Amino acid sequence: MVKYHGKQNFAVIGLGQFGGSICRTLVESGQEVLAIDNDEQIVSDFMNIATRAVVADAEDEETLKSLSLGNFDCVFISIGEHIQASIMATIIVKELGAKSIICKAETTSHARVLEKIGANKIIQPEKDMGRRVALQTLSPNIVNYLALNNQVSLAEVKIINKKFIGKSLAELAIREKFGITVIAISRNDNVDVSPMPSEVILAGDTLAVVGATEQVTKFNKATD
Amino acid sequence: MVKYHGKQNFAVIGLGQFGGSICRTLVESGQEVLAIDNDEQIVSDFMNIATRAVVADAEDEETLKSLSLGNFDCVFISIGEHIQASIMATIIVKELGAKSIICKAETTSHARVLEKIGANKIIQPEKDMGRRVALQTLSPNIVNYLALNNQVSLAEVKIINKKFIGKSLAELAIREKFGITVIAISRNDNVDVSPMPSEVILAGDTLAVVGATEQVTKFNKATD
Ligand SMILES: Nc1ncnc2c1ncn2[C@@H]1O[C@H](COP(=O)(O)OP(=O)(O)OP(=O)(O)O)[C@@H](O)[C@H]1O
Ligand SMILES: Nc1ncnc2c1ncn2[C@@H]1O[C@H](COP(=O)(O)OP(=O)(O)OP(=O)(O)O)[C@@H](O)[C@H]1O
Ligand SMILES: [Ca+2]
Ligand SMILES: [Ca+2]
Ligand SMILES: [Ca+2]
Ligand SMILES: [Ca+2]
Repeated sequence: MVKYHGKQNFAVIGLGQFGGSICRTLVESGQEVLAIDNDEQIVSDFMNIATRAVVADAEDEETLKSLSLGNFDCVFISIGEHIQASIMATIIVKELGAKSIICKAETTSHARVLEKIGANKIIQPEKDMGRRVALQTLSPNIVNYLALNNQVSLAEVKIINKKFIGKSLAELAIREKFGITVIAISRNDNVDVSPMPSEVILAGDTLAVVGATEQVTKFNKATD
Repeated sequence: MVKYHGKQNFAVIGLGQFGGSICRTLVESGQEVLAIDNDEQIVSDFMNIATRAVVADAEDEETLKSLSLGNFDCVFISIGEHIQASIMATIIVKELGAKSIICKAETTSHARVLEKIGANKIIQPEKDMGRRVALQTLSPNIVNYLALNNQVSLAEVKIINKKFIGKSLAELAIREKFGITVIAISRNDNVDVSPMPSEVILAGDTLAVVGATEQVTKFNKATD
């Protein structure tokens, strides 16, 4: 994990699965977090996790003001299904002057409203992960994927095709044949980030490659 | 996007945000998808999206059997909040003999139950994205991040620190100083995947780097 540095000031409004995970991750990274929900049971669960946990209605301006939410560097509003509460909370926290407001959105139209009223970043976790999971299922050899831009991608491709196994990188001539570069080879939890041309590919190796998306796709197909 | 190849046979049970996104992505990738929900309005919304959309209760064994769910290559059960329905559907689809069952879980204990009853893959979208978003917020210069294993990472780091700007890769001696390798430089939607040592870094460039996570972290800190 890339570890965090520097201290900021965080509040999380809405301690569902998304907000709860944000709160836990921030605390684990050494941050101070004010956790807010209108559900007493949930707030009591976060008493031992967050720096401070408070029962409050995110639509209640006076309460949010009294919690000084305008003074926070970053406020997460992680209420998806209660769309009205999410919108009201965003308007209030914005008016109070919080530096950055990061919101969960249930749908694309919800996201559009949040953007209009000044949310600095909007996330649709279910939609994004649904897309990711579907694409992973369609390309099971691609262990991980990262688009550097619209044309260039980086992918971790698991090698199961016998044509590739037992051959060295030099013999496979991946750069010449596919126009992509092998960045790293992962094998049994070890990663070699400067593989030699003489390195021989074994079954189950994962190759991290970078190049034009089209070429990366061709390489993935070839390894099927 | 890495494009998909080969045709499979998909069903999605539960057309909420996660299931709906899976269904859309599969159809956009040219797949045939059977879409199921017990909400008539939602099913009617998917009539024009999925290959076939059916109103059915995921807890009703006879109905799932009549839809031949056992013959599918891959069945997504994307019901998070209605935990009982999610569990019942998984048990039934497993008994019917579907090759692969991919489930959404609301909580970690929900995930544990799904694993016990034979789900092949379990995803907690809100939890995973919450973690990701929190870590992104803590390291805003890290545009993208990918752990190759527990020790080695690949990161896209945005360069805003003046110390780095206007200097060539050779002058910056990133490999010598940080022990990491620059894989690519992104600038205004262009990506150079084989940057020369003479390449000069401009403000706003994003460097894709690979190396020991600790070193990648140090590099990220140095660019702050
Ligand atoms: N008005 C409100 N004030 C404070 N907290 C609220 C308010 N409305 C909802 N919440 C809390 O926010 C959390 C998430 O709300 P909701 O169920 O609407 O979103 P969700 O998108 O289903 O969340 P997740 O999927 O991340 O669990 C819940 O714990 C809920 O109690
Ligand atoms: N017994 C059932 N049979 C069929 N569909 C169901 C059943 N129970 C729930 N669903 C449908 O599954 C979808 C998702 O259900 P639910 O709200 O429980 O999960 P969720 O985790 O909130 O989903 P998401 O966050 O992805 O929108 C909804 O469209 C709902 O109508
Ligand atoms: Ca949820
Ligand atoms: Ca909810
Ligand atoms: Ca949801
Ligand atoms: Ca729901």
